[in-house]
Amino acid sequence: MAGNTFGNIFRVSTFGESHGKAVGGVIDGCPPEVEITEADIQKELNRRRPGQSRYTTPRDEKDRVQLLSGVFEGKSTGTPIGFLVENQNQKSKDYNHLKDNYRPSHADYTYEKKYGLRDHRGGGRASARETISRVVAGAIAKAILKQHGIQVRAWVSAMGSVQLTKDLNQLDLNQTENSLIRCPDPETEETMKKLIEQTAQDGDTLGGVVSCLASGLPSGLGEPVFDKLHADLGKAMLSINAVKGFEYGSGFAGTQMKGSEHNDRFTEKDGEIITETNHSGGIQGGISNGQDIFMRVAFKPIATVMKTQQTVNRKGQAVKIEGKGRHDVTVLPRAVPIVEAMAALTLVDHYLRDLHYNHQPQKSSS
Amino acid sequence: MAGNTFGNIFRVSTFGESHGKAVGGVIDGCPPEVEITEADIQKELNRRRPGQSRYTTPRDEKDRVQLLSGVFEGKSTGTPIGFLVENQNQKSKDYNHLKDNYRPSHADYTYEKKYGLRDHRGGGRASARETISRVVAGAIAKAILKQHGIQVRAWVSAMGSVQLTKDLNQLDLNQTENSLIRCPDPETEETMKKLIEQTAQDGDTLGGVVSCLASGLPSGLGEPVFDKLHADLGKAMLSINAVKGFEYGSGFAGTQMKGSEHNDRFTEKDGEIITETNHSGGIQGGISNGQDIFMRVAFKPIATVMKTQQTVNRKGQAVKIEGKGRHDVTVLPRAVPIVEAMAALTLVDHYLRDLHYNHQPQKSSS
Amino acid sequence: MAGNTFGNIFRVSTFGESHGKAVGGVIDGCPPEVEITEADIQKELNRRRPGQSRYTTPRDEKDRVQLLSGVFEGKSTGTPIGFLVENQNQKSKDYNHLKDNYRPSHADYTYEKKYGLRDHRGGGRASARETISRVVAGAIAKAILKQHGIQVRAWVSAMGSVQLTKDLNQLDLNQTENSLIRCPDPETEETMKKLIEQTAQDGDTLGGVVSCLASGLPSGLGEPVFDKLHADLGKAMLSINAVKGFEYGSGFAGTQMKGSEHNDRFTEKDGEIITETNHSGGIQGGISNGQDIFMRVAFKPIATVMKTQQTVNRKGQAVKIEGKGRHDVTVLPRAVPIVEAMAALTLVDHYLRDLHYNHQPQKSSS
Amino acid sequence: MAGNTFGNIFRVSTFGESHGKAVGGVIDGCPPEVEITEADIQKELNRRRPGQSRYTTPRDEKDRVQLLSGVFEGKSTGTPIGFLVENQNQKSKDYNHLKDNYRPSHADYTYEKKYGLRDHRGGGRASARETISRVVAGAIAKAILKQHGIQVRAWVSAMGSVQLTKDLNQLDLNQTENSLIRCPDPETEETMKKLIEQTAQDGDTLGGVVSCLASGLPSGLGEPVFDKLHADLGKAMLSINAVKGFEYGSGFAGTQMKGSEHNDRFTEKDGEIITETNHSGGIQGGISNGQDIFMRVAFKPIATVMKTQQTVNRKGQAVKIEGKGRHDVTVLPRAVPIVEAMAALTLVDHYLRDLHYNHQPQKSSS
Repeated sequence: MAGNTFGNIFRVSTFGESHGKAVGGVIDGCPPEVEITEADIQKELNRRRPGQSRYTTPRDEKDRVQLLSGVFEGKSTGTPIGFLVENQNQKSKDYNHLKDNYRPSHADYTYEKKYGLRDHRGGGRASARETISRVVAGAIAKAILKQHGIQVRAWVSAMGSVQLTKDLNQLDLNQTENSLIRCPDPETEETMKKLIEQTAQDGDTLGGVVSCLASGLPSGLGEPVFDKLHADLGKAMLSINAVKGFEYGSGFAGTQMKGSEHNDRFTEKDGEIITETNHSGGIQGGISNGQDIFMRVAFKPIATVMKTQQTVNRKGQAVKIEGKGRHDVTVLPRAVPIVEAMAALTLVDHYLRDLHYNHQPQKSSS
Repeated sequence: MAGNTFGNIFRVSTFGESHGKAVGGVIDGCPPEVEITEADIQKELNRRRPGQSRYTTPRDEKDRVQLLSGVFEGKSTGTPIGFLVENQNQKSKDYNHLKDNYRPSHADYTYEKKYGLRDHRGGGRASARETISRVVAGAIAKAILKQHGIQVRAWVSAMGSVQLTKDLNQLDLNQTENSLIRCPDPETEETMKKLIEQTAQDGDTLGGVVSCLASGLPSGLGEPVFDKLHADLGKAMLSINAVKGFEYGSGFAGTQMKGSEHNDRFTEKDGEIITETNHSGGIQGGISNGQDIFMRVAFKPIATVMKTQQTVNRKGQAVKIEGKGRHDVTVLPRAVPIVEAMAALTLVDHYLRDLHYNHQPQKSSS
Repeated sequence: MAGNTFGNIFRVSTFGESHGKAVGGVIDGCPPEVEITEADIQKELNRRRPGQSRYTTPRDEKDRVQLLSGVFEGKSTGTPIGFLVENQNQKSKDYNHLKDNYRPSHADYTYEKKYGLRDHRGGGRASARETISRVVAGAIAKAILKQHGIQVRAWVSAMGSVQLTKDLNQLDLNQTENSLIRCPDPETEETMKKLIEQTAQDGDTLGGVVSCLASGLPSGLGEPVFDKLHADLGKAMLSINAVKGFEYGSGFAGTQMKGSEHNDRFTEKDGEIITETNHSGGIQGGISNGQDIFMRVAFKPIATVMKTQQTVNRKGQAVKIEGKGRHDVTVLPRAVPIVEAMAALTLVDHYLRDLHYNHQPQKSSS
Repeated sequence: MAGNTFGNIFRVSTFGESHGKAVGGVIDGCPPEVEITEADIQKELNRRRPGQSRYTTPRDEKDRVQLLSGVFEGKSTGTPIGFLVENQNQKSKDYNHLKDNYRPSHADYTYEKKYGLRDHRGGGRASARETISRVVAGAIAKAILKQHGIQVRAWVSAMGSVQLTKDLNQLDLNQTENSLIRCPDPETEETMKKLIEQTAQDGDTLGGVVSCLASGLPSGLGEPVFDKLHADLGKAMLSINAVKGFEYGSGFAGTQMKGSEHNDRFTEKDGEIITETNHSGGIQGGISNGQDIFMRVAFKPIATVMKTQQTVNRKGQAVKIEGKGRHDVTVLPRAVPIVEAMAALTLVDHYLRDLHYNHQPQKSSS
């Protein structure tokens, strides 16, 4: 109930603060015989790592995943997978100035109100370091989805006011990883870079939008009525730090269409039933229909700015806090693997949940 | 796992198809000594009922709630509350033409793919009648929230392309129920009405946006990291039929703000710590900060249109289906109490979850 | 969390007090295409019904099950199954004398301590009428198990001090239903009957033991480490009113054997690996091994006796209460279908849980 | 769903095989401000450790707990507590002879049937090393219970055929830890020791019974109807390796009592309502009544014997396996802290669950 577990069948429970000994977790419900290596997980973790370019945080964090159980001779055994990533920087002296002050739009105040005390070193549990565990679990989820031909890809589709306006079919999503800021359109990427540089000079920060596409899905995933596939995808995305909104298919724009425009006509193609358009975003009645699932996730600008800000301390007294050190201007490029991880975790969970409906005997008898 | 349960501590499990004997559910975890009457619940149910005006569905459905257990002498006893609403219209002859065809952007196709068979009478489980159970449970949730000074109010803020552009502080939310389409601004309401009438003449349908405000909340509600308060609110809203998007606080628009603009400065007022602005939407790090929670929920246009549509049947053959009977042009006005119900269910669940953190002895010893 | 839900995948949530309008529940996670009729469920319910003979309660309760949803044209649809059984006798006047007194070894005192108030009409939620919902859900669970060749049979193996001492292979379990007190050995049954009659004359009551055998199980059911198959079976049985103990396989007697005696040697027979003995009770390491599961469930004597008893009222004052009306001497015969129902619910849940481990694509693509 | 999580509010998810890198887990839902030190946990872990005397396993395992998160400046913060204990002995060469054979009454066969493969090094996940995580989590649970005056104590009450026959009020439970085999009665202990020595010479093993007493409980803990307090205690105990049965209060013996003998009369003492006898074992209707909870847990004899045993290999061929190395004759003394841990985990979870029923505002407003 305390909220540190995600998923029902494929279930990850995570732990760890920014300045504790380690972050990590337990994955329970990973099916047996999935090929898993630390190297494959590390690749995903490196995508999330700060310091990949000057467009992301310059701090040098080396995050090495260690698998502690559940994998034997390169394959999952069906037993829980324990994992951890040690924190390199556990010294907390840099953070003593935060002990008594509430940083604006950070979680300092609310954690203290909820728990009566807080680990004031950095963000504590509210730090983005927590997302390491999501990426590790997501990497394993991706490996399972891949076995079934399902792929999840995300990219930066808006950086502050700079929008990627091209249609999905005009983009080459394979270009995303070649882009320092994970925008698959080189032209838009350039404009985004300029905005980032200008904003950095101003000591300010940017938000934006990450788009995500899941393809290769079978129909039938998703559970009416409360655990609709998009409801669980939405919760997954909204649980990521700094996310303020979620939409899928036609989203908010679709509210302005007429029903006759918005309806996706069914048609038959090569023996399969498909839809001619995809305003539904691959989901109807909460259940996947076999078309691509398209989602957009809104991130607010980073709260830590290189400017002096007015706030209060524990006693409610007005204080000023200074931005210092070097910080990200934007989380967007690093958010891409996190969005993918959360999509993968949700989809693999629903994939496994759907197996109940085929209740014929599965195994040869004993 | 089959998805018909909502909530963790205050938990409702629902059942019922549009043309079965009844819809209903079981509420488990309602605290004892809450004052509950069928009359109070009926009020909420009447707000959801079709046929309230010519702007909503003209079919005459009488939905009378019956409480079957868990309430004794006008108060909850702490044991589960069983409830049901009988379906008046169980005759299924009207729906035989739907048996073999997949209506565009309905759940006919996906239900059949998931389960291998479906109850083709009306929408079956995917029908909006399912939301009756949400409203019943939500009414009880509201009664609990009211004890603690928490209020949830929703209204229609966009109908198709007609937007309610006024700021929150320019609106009188007490006017919402005086409006046939539950838009608290009379001027905007008039424009919406005209659009509805025109769209009805065209045999077409409309989507829109429902906004929702929760006020009077204590700080501390919400569970890091996966069950952030807004993540659970988002899932709650996305689980409602026809919802395509969710945002809170600054939402998608906030992605275009700079960090220094977006940050909500803390200040002290009358001995309380508050924020000067509320781009955070009352939630920081997934935990309520005591300010109002503001949300927007996107509804797609109704899929049933009074026009001839192209689709396929079970065999993948092209068929034409006709819209017939009288149907809603828009669900928005009736969606208002449903949005409120889902917000109330989420908030009461988090209210009760938060009680664990105060683990001092609660009762006098035996 | 409030404890009125059983199961994970096949999940039943129940409601209802002895003197409310109805008892019932919602079954979520029943696979589609299971043949379900009210008549089949009613058969099980009749086995539980009081008044079947002078050896069980003479009150005349007519318990007719009504299915409200989830079954269409004789088959489950995969959507939740709502059901209820109306209470015939809702008049509460007979129970006013209980309002202020705590009956010894009943739940009056503890319910009031927990909830601050209680429904004092009869046992309220603690009444054995609650088990009606278990039997209804269990009947559906049995139908699913039957599809897979799994059978669950229970019988009375001890009544007070009268023990059924014959070995399992000396019993014909098909005789159980021919016995008024559900003891499959006619000789022992006679002794039990005499004990019941004598005890009834004394105004006293009896406990006893119900044994249960599950056969036809595949190997592989059960989830290490906390949800071992026997741990969930044990919880299921211990949750039944009046149960004081549970053992499986060699049970408490097995604690006195040496390891070399207790170990079940594997051997091969007709191409299958079996064990020569079955002290393990069909379960090793919490997982079924394909052999029969044998369990014993201890029931305490009924607390309502036809004698004057000393107790206290709400104020702690000493009072005397009289037994009146006609009551069961023993619940054992009626407990047989309840034990079977709980075994079936547990086994079907684990059967469905085990499907996750076979994670190959299950359905043809969309 | 994969069964490696225990508890609802205070919830531990564990991982680890006998020969992997580490065993450990995540505790979610620990309230803030609980005093926790590695030293306190280590004390409990040392009680479980092998090699404490010649009566338990002579292998030298050093099990040092490491807390990775959730504790700051000596107190829990309310965020998840990650912990691990490294495995000293990860070399698997000793176990290659087990790769293809199924040891009698071990979990080799069933794990392989369930998962399709298994980690054959030692017991893998089925090894008793898994209980380390239970003891760590249990130590924290005990710290919370202690704050509320609740104490849990277990002891060995039967070793093979040697029974501790004294009544509870004739025992000094504080003597348990002074006894090498954790039997609080010196006379019985001596007889048990002799039996252990004789059995060791025979190369055989012993089972037995661990009794457990929880005292200082408030009334009101436990959730009708499926999560009765004793049902959850029973599941907790039955989930421990080698457990075959559970009883509480009068248990199986109580089935032979008459209702008039078994009923616990209420009486008033010093302003409190208590019962004169305690056949109910401190629980009525699944809810604690404030009296002591008494439980008995049956352990089968250890399956690894120092004798040649007949079994089969993967192909179903008859093979002989030899007992080798030095192994425990009995787990009973080491099982005592594990039984206490599982009792503590269950009680603290129900303690926290019960807080929902007191739903008055808990904190000062924001």
